[in-house]
Amino acid sequence: MAINPVEAPAPPASPHHIEKHFGSTALVRDVVIGMSDGLTVPFALAAGLSGAVNSVHVVVLAGLAEIAAGSIAMGLGGFLAAQGDAEHYASERLREERSESMPVLEALKRRPQAWVDFMMRFELGLEEPHPGRAGRSATTIAVSYVVGGLVPLFPYMVGSSLPSAFNASVAITLVALLVFGGVKGRLTGSGTLRSAVQTLVIGGLAAGAAYLLARLLSVH
Amino acid sequence: MAINPVEAPAPPASPHHIEKHFGSTALVRDVVIGMSDGLTVPFALAAGLSGAVNSVHVVVLAGLAEIAAGSIAMGLGGFLAAQGDAEHYASERLREERSESMPVLEALKRRPQAWVDFMMRFELGLEEPHPGRAGRSATTIAVSYVVGGLVPLFPYMVGSSLPSAFNASVAITLVALLVFGGVKGRLTGSGTLRSAVQTLVIGGLAAGAAYLLARLLSVH
Repeated sequence: MAINPVEAPAPPASPHHIEKHFGSTALVRDVVIGMSDGLTVPFALAAGLSGAVNSVHVVVLAGLAEIAAGSIAMGLGGFLAAQGDAEHYASERLREERSESMPVLEALKRRPQAWVDFMMRFELGLEEPHPGRAGRSATTIAVSYVVGGLVPLFPYMVGSSLPSAFNASVAITLVALLVFGGVKGRLTGSGTLRSAVQTLVIGGLAAGAAYLLARLLSVH
Repeated sequence: MAINPVEAPAPPASPHHIEKHFGSTALVRDVVIGMSDGLTVPFALAAGLSGAVNSVHVVVLAGLAEIAAGSIAMGLGGFLAAQGDAEHYASERLREERSESMPVLEALKRRPQAWVDFMMRFELGLEEPHPGRAGRSATTIAVSYVVGGLVPLFPYMVGSSLPSAFNASVAITLVALLVFGGVKGRLTGSGTLRSAVQTLVIGGLAAGAAYLLARLLSVH
């Protein structure tokens, strides 16, 4: 806490509490963003196409094209989001610095820097983003997407027959979704088992819907 | 501002300033999240497959399967994110309410509710999420993804030859990316032209990479 450290020593739990909040969460979040979609969408697409086309080659082609498109779109999207956060923070900070400080808390007003920090966090709920975060965020999201996407595609790339590749892909990916969901829940504190089940359900629903749709369309 | 309204009347610009921050941003953000990926990934996948397979039918199948998978994965992902925000806020709020209020700002301590609000926003940077936001968020993201994804796929669905459908899809989608990027930039305040160009570049890069990859793989 930046305000009034002399008058008010923080209780023992508080600094730890904050540190846990603003520590490695950005990296974890980027990995989760990239891998959630990377494990789910290429898996669902490959499963869906397996129900409609008879060529492993087409499934692999579509899957890899999706991974390329998805990782670039998500990575650049993450880059712009992080860049936008940084710009938003900078412009709001300039605005607070220029505006008349309201005479609410005299103690804070005597320390202009602390006052601006206070306004940034209390009024606007903004944290100062790390410099260079946009590039790292983009790379982390894109790589996580590619890694996640190659898991369900792997059986199609090495297997010879479509049905056996499909079965192997479903089995491997369901396990991967469970493990990833569990680790995600542990890291983000939302509960290991619960997150594992949620992640599995999302992947399963997306794949099931894609499969059914492709199946219906290929019959007509 | 909730703190000390009697001692410190807020300057005229401040409430408006806050309201602008926490207004319709959630809805706009969800539409932007869904449509950004919806316009980009199915477009890139369809363009990529056009360079590798000779069947419009396969391109449409893969595109629709991707839309089904992507909209469900992103919609449910948005649902969990919004639900997680609400739970995180509730648990942190309970924690602040139970913890010993630090004797920093005596004026705030005399108003426990304001103190908890203060701690929620200043220490944790958390806003109270709207109830029912998770469901609305999921639907908005999913529908936006489907709407966005049908734009690049439409030419393949109505066209007969793959090359003409490909050309029409590229032309229509580049215009759609420009318009969507421009509107997005206007709504989010990041600049109409700049956002239009950025959105176009992301879509173009993703599609170009998917096309090249599929092309390379289909040659070997």
